[in-house]
Amino acid sequence: MKVLVINGPNLNLLGSRNPDVYGNKNLDQVNDSIRVALPEIDFDFFQSNHEGVLIDKIQDADGKYAGIVLNPGAFTHYSFAIRDAIEAVEVPVVEVHISNVHGREDFRRQSVVADVCRGTISGFGVHGYVLAVKALQYEMKA
Amino acid sequence: MKVLVINGPNLNLLGSRNPDVYGNKNLDQVNDSIRVALPEIDFDFFQSNHEGVLIDKIQDADGKYAGIVLNPGAFTHYSFAIRDAIEAVEVPVVEVHISNVHGREDFRRQSVVADVCRGTISGFGVHGYVLAVKALQYEMKA
Amino acid sequence: MKVLVINGPNLNLLGSRNPDVYGNKNLDQVNDSIRVALPEIDFDFFQSNHEGVLIDKIQDADGKYAGIVLNPGAFTHYSFAIRDAIEAVEVPVVEVHISNVHGREDFRRQSVVADVCRGTISGFGVHGYVLAVKALQYEMKA
Amino acid sequence: MKVLVINGPNLNLLGSRNPDVYGNKNLDQVNDSIRVALPEIDFDFFQSNHEGVLIDKIQDADGKYAGIVLNPGAFTHYSFAIRDAIEAVEVPVVEVHISNVHGREDFRRQSVVADVCRGTISGFGVHGYVLAVKALQYEMKA
Amino acid sequence: MKVLVINGPNLNLLGSRNPDVYGNKNLDQVNDSIRVALPEIDFDFFQSNHEGVLIDKIQDADGKYAGIVLNPGAFTHYSFAIRDAIEAVEVPVVEVHISNVHGREDFRRQSVVADVCRGTISGFGVHGYVLAVKALQYEMKA
Amino acid sequence: MKVLVINGPNLNLLGSRNPDVYGNKNLDQVNDSIRVALPEIDFDFFQSNHEGVLIDKIQDADGKYAGIVLNPGAFTHYSFAIRDAIEAVEVPVVEVHISNVHGREDFRRQSVVADVCRGTISGFGVHGYVLAVKALQYEMKA
Amino acid sequence: MKVLVINGPNLNLLGSRNPDVYGNKNLDQVNDSIRVALPEIDFDFFQSNHEGVLIDKIQDADGKYAGIVLNPGAFTHYSFAIRDAIEAVEVPVVEVHISNVHGREDFRRQSVVADVCRGTISGFGVHGYVLAVKALQYEMKA
Amino acid sequence: MKVLVINGPNLNLLGSRNPDVYGNKNLDQVNDSIRVALPEIDFDFFQSNHEGVLIDKIQDADGKYAGIVLNPGAFTHYSFAIRDAIEAVEVPVVEVHISNVHGREDFRRQSVVADVCRGTISGFGVHGYVLAVKALQYEMKA
Amino acid sequence: MKVLVINGPNLNLLGSRNPDVYGNKNLDQVNDSIRVALPEIDFDFFQSNHEGVLIDKIQDADGKYAGIVLNPGAFTHYSFAIRDAIEAVEVPVVEVHISNVHGREDFRRQSVVADVCRGTISGFGVHGYVLAVKALQYEMKA
Amino acid sequence: MKVLVINGPNLNLLGSRNPDVYGNKNLDQVNDSIRVALPEIDFDFFQSNHEGVLIDKIQDADGKYAGIVLNPGAFTHYSFAIRDAIEAVEVPVVEVHISNVHGREDFRRQSVVADVCRGTISGFGVHGYVLAVKALQYEMKA
Amino acid sequence: MKVLVINGPNLNLLGSRNPDVYGNKNLDQVNDSIRVALPEIDFDFFQSNHEGVLIDKIQDADGKYAGIVLNPGAFTHYSFAIRDAIEAVEVPVVEVHISNVHGREDFRRQSVVADVCRGTISGFGVHGYVLAVKALQYEMKA
Amino acid sequence: MKVLVINGPNLNLLGSRNPDVYGNKNLDQVNDSIRVALPEIDFDFFQSNHEGVLIDKIQDADGKYAGIVLNPGAFTHYSFAIRDAIEAVEVPVVEVHISNVHGREDFRRQSVVADVCRGTISGFGVHGYVLAVKALQYEMKA
Repeated sequence: MKVLVINGPNLNLLGSRNPDVYGNKNLDQVNDSIRVALPEIDFDFFQSNHEGVLIDKIQDADGKYAGIVLNPGAFTHYSFAIRDAIEAVEVPVVEVHISNVHGREDFRRQSVVADVCRGTISGFGVHGYVLAVKALQYEMKA
Repeated sequence: MKVLVINGPNLNLLGSRNPDVYGNKNLDQVNDSIRVALPEIDFDFFQSNHEGVLIDKIQDADGKYAGIVLNPGAFTHYSFAIRDAIEAVEVPVVEVHISNVHGREDFRRQSVVADVCRGTISGFGVHGYVLAVKALQYEMKA
Repeated sequence: MKVLVINGPNLNLLGSRNPDVYGNKNLDQVNDSIRVALPEIDFDFFQSNHEGVLIDKIQDADGKYAGIVLNPGAFTHYSFAIRDAIEAVEVPVVEVHISNVHGREDFRRQSVVADVCRGTISGFGVHGYVLAVKALQYEMKA
Repeated sequence: MKVLVINGPNLNLLGSRNPDVYGNKNLDQVNDSIRVALPEIDFDFFQSNHEGVLIDKIQDADGKYAGIVLNPGAFTHYSFAIRDAIEAVEVPVVEVHISNVHGREDFRRQSVVADVCRGTISGFGVHGYVLAVKALQYEMKA
Repeated sequence: MKVLVINGPNLNLLGSRNPDVYGNKNLDQVNDSIRVALPEIDFDFFQSNHEGVLIDKIQDADGKYAGIVLNPGAFTHYSFAIRDAIEAVEVPVVEVHISNVHGREDFRRQSVVADVCRGTISGFGVHGYVLAVKALQYEMKA
Repeated sequence: MKVLVINGPNLNLLGSRNPDVYGNKNLDQVNDSIRVALPEIDFDFFQSNHEGVLIDKIQDADGKYAGIVLNPGAFTHYSFAIRDAIEAVEVPVVEVHISNVHGREDFRRQSVVADVCRGTISGFGVHGYVLAVKALQYEMKA
Repeated sequence: MKVLVINGPNLNLLGSRNPDVYGNKNLDQVNDSIRVALPEIDFDFFQSNHEGVLIDKIQDADGKYAGIVLNPGAFTHYSFAIRDAIEAVEVPVVEVHISNVHGREDFRRQSVVADVCRGTISGFGVHGYVLAVKALQYEMKA
Repeated sequence: MKVLVINGPNLNLLGSRNPDVYGNKNLDQVNDSIRVALPEIDFDFFQSNHEGVLIDKIQDADGKYAGIVLNPGAFTHYSFAIRDAIEAVEVPVVEVHISNVHGREDFRRQSVVADVCRGTISGFGVHGYVLAVKALQYEMKA
Repeated sequence: MKVLVINGPNLNLLGSRNPDVYGNKNLDQVNDSIRVALPEIDFDFFQSNHEGVLIDKIQDADGKYAGIVLNPGAFTHYSFAIRDAIEAVEVPVVEVHISNVHGREDFRRQSVVADVCRGTISGFGVHGYVLAVKALQYEMKA
Repeated sequence: MKVLVINGPNLNLLGSRNPDVYGNKNLDQVNDSIRVALPEIDFDFFQSNHEGVLIDKIQDADGKYAGIVLNPGAFTHYSFAIRDAIEAVEVPVVEVHISNVHGREDFRRQSVVADVCRGTISGFGVHGYVLAVKALQYEMKA
Repeated sequence: MKVLVINGPNLNLLGSRNPDVYGNKNLDQVNDSIRVALPEIDFDFFQSNHEGVLIDKIQDADGKYAGIVLNPGAFTHYSFAIRDAIEAVEVPVVEVHISNVHGREDFRRQSVVADVCRGTISGFGVHGYVLAVKALQYEMKA
Repeated sequence: MKVLVINGPNLNLLGSRNPDVYGNKNLDQVNDSIRVALPEIDFDFFQSNHEGVLIDKIQDADGKYAGIVLNPGAFTHYSFAIRDAIEAVEVPVVEVHISNVHGREDFRRQSVVADVCRGTISGFGVHGYVLAVKALQYEMKA
């Protein structure tokens, strides 16, 4: 089972940006810990600050992966283009947020992608990525 | 590790109500499958259609459980009283929704409890309960 | 044909509360006059100020009655939990309001249950209950 | 007892327009069935797609009828001019909608005439007209 | 100097409709009193409950009158078509309201025609019509 | 192929009203130029300032024309009655606006008819009518 | 008959401020022309840029004048304190605006004083003051 | 003089919940300090997390108490059913909030009960209860 | 203990303005009754219709009084400048309203000063001033 | 005459994405059919999922093409940067949407680019592109 | 070059009010440091808590100063009267805020004066005044 | 002291785009004039129409520059991703707008980046860049 983990803008700064909210592991360490937690999965990891690159990647993943775990970062709140990409592909997408988006600024409460994802996991720190993959595994079995 | 799983109004009708959205297992079957999936956890299960009873239960759980998995049903959208109960207790609460609340009626998009829960899991069917317990397990270890 | 008439919060005060708006018959007298007006119907009458008790009652009525006549009182305006109960059961529900809710405070203009009821009757005083049962009778014949 | 039944715009298409929502009787058949259901009433029936004609008719009915049963069609949602006509006359007006306006497009949820009508009946198909006349009969007796 | 006085929907009921708000002179008496107050003006008076007829009349007045005094009645609040007619013609239009529209229902606070009229006079009862003609006289001299 | 071109309120003033926005051909000249541009089409042209007359015309066109090209003028922004007429008939309707409605007053940005028309063409001056007919021709072939 | 004419903030700049909108007479010239137009009235004129001074003046006028003509300038849009002063006194107040407030910035469309004034006159330039006094004269006779 | 003090949801946790906001006396201690501060009053104290129980209690208090001091907790913000109960009874009700509700989350700024209470006291900690009783004493004397 | 009681705009008209709402004691009588009710307090009383004067007074009170009792009148609803003055000084301020602001016009429901005052007392007539001083006394002791 | 046809995000998936809405031709086939329909035009075709690349392309087209036909995809709803690019260049831009954006999700109803385009064509499937070019041809001749 | 620096309400408390936000220099010290930083400018400094006084000052400055540097304090958010004064005079006005108004309470985000000022400088502490004068100097040279 | 000046989308068109608003120097000329005005600063200049490229640049600048002067162009109004980048880095960012954004289209009034920048300078043409650097210089010294 191949899974693609995509992180959006500014998540390349994990570990240094706002560690109270996002924890102090950097992105490579987070990715490694996901691999360790789920050794049975064949992972690819991807990060970009570019909306267009993320859209290309989502489109390209169709047919190649059993699922996508997507943390869209700030694009969550306005990128209808990423939303349309998720809706257009058949590969299931799970939305993940490291922090509890409901306990922060008002603009973080709106997700324009949530209704086209299979589901959403938010607030559990970097464990959210592992939970998202497990959610995909349940989907596969169902 | 003791965990309390609380289901709010109309979730006693699981299996018969709107099976396209909620699946066709009844609540006892769902609870059994959670127990089977996580044999290392000592579970209590509770359901009520009464807001006040749910508040009493959440208050009463403080100090007795390592965590609460809560599907507040329709109370999600307006029960500031349940919100205050969650905020008032120390036991961590994880919010679960069986369906993807973002892909349904507009009123289901607002959660008045989300900002005082540790995190939220929605859209993964009854597997959401198991994921929520795993999320609590991660919290415990952290 | 069995019909359940359910009155929500503060309707037990009929006759004493705001008689200009609600008339001066008390609830028992209203119920008697419904029975007299429709002797061919086998009625049960129920009133509660408790949202949860109303939900239990609606769920419990499924399969036992040909229809429910429901005056949700103030729950009309915010109880998404009662709304979900109505949607979850198969027994048809008719929404009744004694007063013309459109000619009063702004908050009374919103009904969160109307879209899952068969229909709504408002503004005809306690005759509204009789009209609601007649509406159910038409449904039965159709 | 003389009653005037007024149907607004596009209700002349009953039977052909959207039969899932409005039923498959045409307007004459609906009017006939009202007459049959209430033989004790002396009915006049009127339909127009013209707001001004409807206003003229409502004004003209004052003093000639015991009541008006009015389905304002789409004018329900914006014709403050019809609203003022209803408020200006003494003949009681009952608002009827064939479909459950709360379960359709958002714009259908607003009625600008409801607060000046005696009451509203919606969602019971063409039976709503008969119920409306019965409501007027109760008013007469009261 | 020729002036056209146009009254919109339900103003034909002046004198009988809501006399507390609109006074107890009927429309003919009001028109006569305007004539008496301003004998130097050559008046035409017109009333209709039909939006389209009012539009035709406004269009037709262009070039024939020095000005129009218009009480659009309830069309004030939503008839963008009358608004466009006023904007399209060269004859100056003065908006009049008998009652103080700001002290009544909320919907009466919005005028969709005000920005294309020369000015607005409201709240002075039927004297408003005379004031409106005087306003036109000032315009003519300026 | 028969096509009916309907123009709504104030479009009879084309050529004299606001020529910067609407051009300086009058309505007959515009209609002639449409005929010249599309000699293969059998056109009927109709204009009215009356909402009810436009509704009658749309209803009456059903079954007689291959399509309707409709410029609803200001009714675009509030006539839910015209909207319902369009929805009720089977003949396809194309919405046309001469000016770019998005570059003018705020109220012109809302079209209450757009969702029941096949499509919308706005901003291309009187050429929009010809484009609309071509759009209908594509529909016919498809 | 004594009348007090009150002008609010920045109206002391009449004649120099924005002459396209407000004309090129200065305030003294405007006041003189009012006196000339209505020689039968005993006028006092007052202007201040201070909200509190305007409130003092309105309170103080009670019992001394037959009426107040008030152009509240920008206070129109937010001074609930001036509104309360008008409501508290018995002397009738007429609201005047030189320009058509509906054809300018959005914030100028809201008047917080209109509902407690007898009426409003706007858009007729400095003639509005004379019309306002005439309106008071009609009130006196009525 | 008998007074009933009612506390709503989660106020049974006083002393342990959020002591910065609510102080560190528990509910019994708070009640005792009220008794001590006002020995001339015959108090009953009541707390419930159940909306329906609170409604029953308010209804039942009518005729038995000179007044009710009510802290509705989170029900303040949405319980129109409690609002209707307060409006329906004759016993005067004073609304109390321990914290300054205006300096906290946005949702706490709305009270749906305030307009049917005699008055509101908020922000003075548990002293608010004593002030509320004094307010009732003034009412009694007036 | 020195306390400053400040009344804002139009409260100098107490006794004559709207006696149903505000009672029929004039401001001096109200102030005397406060003095009589609380002989242990050294009071200064101040009233102004001028926002700037009220700000000066609040600033000037800092360090001279144990507390301020402030009825900001209509400034309650928009004077962010008074709000900033309250926030800037250290002397505690209690907000008082004579009437129940929630049962009147919509604009009276918003207080822009409430979040920077210690607390708010509204609806108890002129007794509210005495209650406010008692609230300050509790603060002093705490 | 050279025309540039630009398609925005996810339109590279034409033919596979949501064929009910977008048809089953892929983008190359759509482009070919445009070329075939308008052999007299010299076309360039461009598609990108990257907002910045689209902006570069629009800027670069200035002076090189007689016009641009632009389907901005989801950028329609939020890309003020593309809007500014269109406004900044002199080459005329026509906005095209394949589907009727008014009959879909609410967010699709807002176009932030429409007011700076010459006009808009929506709802006619891939024929919209051909219509857009024809619209440009009319512009050229005018 | 003469420049007038105007500070609005509560800025006389600089140095003592909220020093985290506003710094700990008092207003005289701030003014001195401005003089020192820009010895080539002939400064006048003015502060008032009175809206009317500020309006008088702005009007009076016209023709006497090369520019005004204005920190309107809380009047920024609602004083349309100050806005009109700025618009009415010819002397250029630069708006300054000491703190970053966007990072504080919501009401501070709205400036009703910004659109009539030359420009705005906010967030740079008391250096903002110096920057504002430099901005005026650039204007003079341009 | 090294400073990075970043210009966002469409600012590469300076000098040709809308010269009334933006002036007629091109971007290189503007950059040169900044260099000339502040010879003591070591500048790098950067412009891109790509949101992702701007984010990369901001991230990359951290630790390399004493400050960033950022004109985000249209991204000001919706790019929460750029906002997060600014918040994530330690280098101070000053927001600059050439035009007075408050005097243009409504959408230009909202800045989603302002609250995470040190401050904002708008309306002073290209001098704003120089003022922004001076603001950074003050920060450095403080």
